[in-house]
Amino acid sequence: MKSGIRPTSEQLSRLEAQLGQLLGARFTRSMAERDLHAQDESWHKCAPPDAVCYPASTDEVSQVVRVCIENRIPIIPFGAGTSLEGHISAVYGGISIDLSRMNRILEVRAQDLDASIEAGVTRQQLNSHIRDTGLFFPVDPGGESTLGGMAATRASGTNAVRYGTMRENVLSLKVVLPNGKILTTSTRARKSAAGYDLTRLMIGSEGTLGIITELTVRLHGIPGAIASAVCSFPNLRSAVSTAAETIQAGVSIARIELLDDQSMKAVNRYSKLNYPEKSTLFLEFHGTTAGVLEQADIVRELAEANGGTQWQWANDPEQRNRLWKARHDMHYAALSMRPGSKVWGTDACVPLSALTDIVTEMREEASAASFFTTCVGHVGDGNFHLGFLIDPSSKSEIEEAERLNSRLIERTLALGGTSTGEHGIGLGKIKWMEKEHGDVAIELMRQIKTAIDPLGLFNPGKLLPNT
Amino acid sequence: MKSGIRPTSEQLSRLEAQLGQLLGARFTRSMAERDLHAQDESWHKCAPPDAVCYPASTDEVSQVVRVCIENRIPIIPFGAGTSLEGHISAVYGGISIDLSRMNRILEVRAQDLDASIEAGVTRQQLNSHIRDTGLFFPVDPGGESTLGGMAATRASGTNAVRYGTMRENVLSLKVVLPNGKILTTSTRARKSAAGYDLTRLMIGSEGTLGIITELTVRLHGIPGAIASAVCSFPNLRSAVSTAAETIQAGVSIARIELLDDQSMKAVNRYSKLNYPEKSTLFLEFHGTTAGVLEQADIVRELAEANGGTQWQWANDPEQRNRLWKARHDMHYAALSMRPGSKVWGTDACVPLSALTDIVTEMREEASAASFFTTCVGHVGDGNFHLGFLIDPSSKSEIEEAERLNSRLIERTLALGGTSTGEHGIGLGKIKWMEKEHGDVAIELMRQIKTAIDPLGLFNPGKLLPNT
Repeated sequence: MKSGIRPTSEQLSRLEAQLGQLLGARFTRSMAERDLHAQDESWHKCAPPDAVCYPASTDEVSQVVRVCIENRIPIIPFGAGTSLEGHISAVYGGISIDLSRMNRILEVRAQDLDASIEAGVTRQQLNSHIRDTGLFFPVDPGGESTLGGMAATRASGTNAVRYGTMRENVLSLKVVLPNGKILTTSTRARKSAAGYDLTRLMIGSEGTLGIITELTVRLHGIPGAIASAVCSFPNLRSAVSTAAETIQAGVSIARIELLDDQSMKAVNRYSKLNYPEKSTLFLEFHGTTAGVLEQADIVRELAEANGGTQWQWANDPEQRNRLWKARHDMHYAALSMRPGSKVWGTDACVPLSALTDIVTEMREEASAASFFTTCVGHVGDGNFHLGFLIDPSSKSEIEEAERLNSRLIERTLALGGTSTGEHGIGLGKIKWMEKEHGDVAIELMRQIKTAIDPLGLFNPGKLLPNT
Repeated sequence: MKSGIRPTSEQLSRLEAQLGQLLGARFTRSMAERDLHAQDESWHKCAPPDAVCYPASTDEVSQVVRVCIENRIPIIPFGAGTSLEGHISAVYGGISIDLSRMNRILEVRAQDLDASIEAGVTRQQLNSHIRDTGLFFPVDPGGESTLGGMAATRASGTNAVRYGTMRENVLSLKVVLPNGKILTTSTRARKSAAGYDLTRLMIGSEGTLGIITELTVRLHGIPGAIASAVCSFPNLRSAVSTAAETIQAGVSIARIELLDDQSMKAVNRYSKLNYPEKSTLFLEFHGTTAGVLEQADIVRELAEANGGTQWQWANDPEQRNRLWKARHDMHYAALSMRPGSKVWGTDACVPLSALTDIVTEMREEASAASFFTTCVGHVGDGNFHLGFLIDPSSKSEIEEAERLNSRLIERTLALGGTSTGEHGIGLGKIKWMEKEHGDVAIELMRQIKTAIDPLGLFNPGKLLPNT
């Protein structure tokens, strides 16, 4: 842990004077604003920053960073506050740089299948904006996340099995580095072999190597035919097996999402649906008219062989949107099952052959917990989330969740998987970093961090242990 | 340029003593071996290393690196010698570490759709090995490249438009770092948000940050239906337009390859085919039975609207293999048009909307050259290669090629493209790095290089100017 990084009141006064002059009312030390920037959607108790600012441009972010360097002020980038691992906690105080007002869509180049946007644009905003181009942006975590935050945490979602994660869907980034300079990571070419992959270095770096202020993202053609379906299964094992077998069969499925019986109960109640409250797969096929039906036939056969019943199509766009909206609202649906609770969401991602066993076994262990639990998964990628609906003020519930989570991660790592498929490290997974990556990788990550952020001011205390 | 990095004869003697003891006959300073390791497939005159060694394991590579560090010996990793930008040149002398004998397939996990292999395994070897699993590895540059070399140069090929490049198809790497330690970059999970993306940092680093000794790669299901076709066009413009429009229409095409009339002439002659000697697209569709026909119908309509004629199916596997073998042999077909020549292959990759104009215009300029020229392209990605068949001993031809290449790259960069879509920087593109990336990016790349390879011994003189 860095000693002496927490700013003194003299440092903060100088910051206030300098940034007040630069940003006027867009710099604040009000307690209300500080508290607002200590809220994410996780169970973590986040520490409020000492100050908050709302830059309006990349140049302003650069100026803010330079003032912070001069005064040795820790910097925590903030998007929509939808992250799940305490990424936005001001562990050592400092300033929250809120990018939500940088939400301009700069250019949509439909012929190039790309768009340039500011970091505060949300995926919903982007997709609404390009609705008439016949294109869409596929990466879709739950919540109204900003694309900058999604890049910083290497987010994914339901479409990743076909379209990839933020890793595959960002062409280039504009980043304010810890020296205040403005980096463009790459050209707009769809592929390149020109030098170190700075784009991928910044994606997933969680604000510890720079502040992402602009993105150029890949867009995809809305397929000519889309078919969605819901299929119920007698138990969790049969649903997960169907998903693994679908991928193993080489079906280029667009979405294959698991919701267990408890999740279906929550979803039905929250989204006013009436699906059977059994382990369920939500499916989507993208392609040409006959092609999607052929794909669906293959999956339906696999499902039936696993005991899947009640295959229900959801083909008109309204019904389909309602289905996926319900899936995306799962986090809030779970919360509604225990008012006042917070979700502790696990995020293991394992090789496909290991998926069925670990999901089934860990689901069973979780079912014995003293709190309500759910299980959902982007099962085509081997990624699943147990949701623990805990009272964040209950020490015993946190300890119980911690024990379950630890067992899950220990098993995941032993199977060749990762502690986090898409939520990131933040504070929540930091104690697993060394175990997952080993000493050599952690040492290399530290060398990179130190080379780029020698003062250690960028989101300190996150991602790497003892920073 | 590093001063004093070239090893003295005393340093080389110590190296010889230490590595001779470690490796026996697998260490050599014979001129024949040294010359062999100064051969790639490019027009570049590569400098021979001072010594060559053939490690048999990652541990041995690590030991070799430690000896080299101790004696300050530059290290140049070597795979199959198929690179195109002088990557393997021993600019400052040193040792060529030839990984071709590390060619074991370590484990194929069909249920996980992945395989672990040593760096010296070629893509052909891997695909032969897994033939019976129903899976394949899609990245396919021409030549019998090693997968280690392909990762080091971020290679791609004809399938990248659908399956991605090495960037998307490597799950994890084992890398011997410049401190001699052995790094595992990641778990086998299909996606992860756990810390800095060391895998992608190493992919495309061209041996300047470490030596890739093992890879875990993604495999893909061989699709249930494959359809290949060839279509001729009245001119280059109509062929390229068809390709760009295909991608813009959202067709998930597996391969869409351009060969111009001169390339078709070379291919016909070299591969004993008799396609029309006109601008041509080689196409392939992957999916389900009706799905591939629907995809093909869309593309055929686009082709016809552009004046495309003579749509020829190549659907039996033998005919299909012959087609793609011919495409992969294009480099050698071109060489056969001017015995004794070398190919100077350009490698621009531009946003799709800019592709038709730049290909057409640069093709026309190249046609006026004093040497035979070809034009082929992975046009679905915006990547194309002009091939200049030059006499490598002719100063005037090199200058002429240089002028054409410079005009191409200047225009490419102005259009938001990259100087290299898949061949890498090596020596050939190094002078364009600053122009392509800008000062801030180059400074950041240097910081990374210095942090990881402080002695500057790993493939010096490549990728970054003045290293």
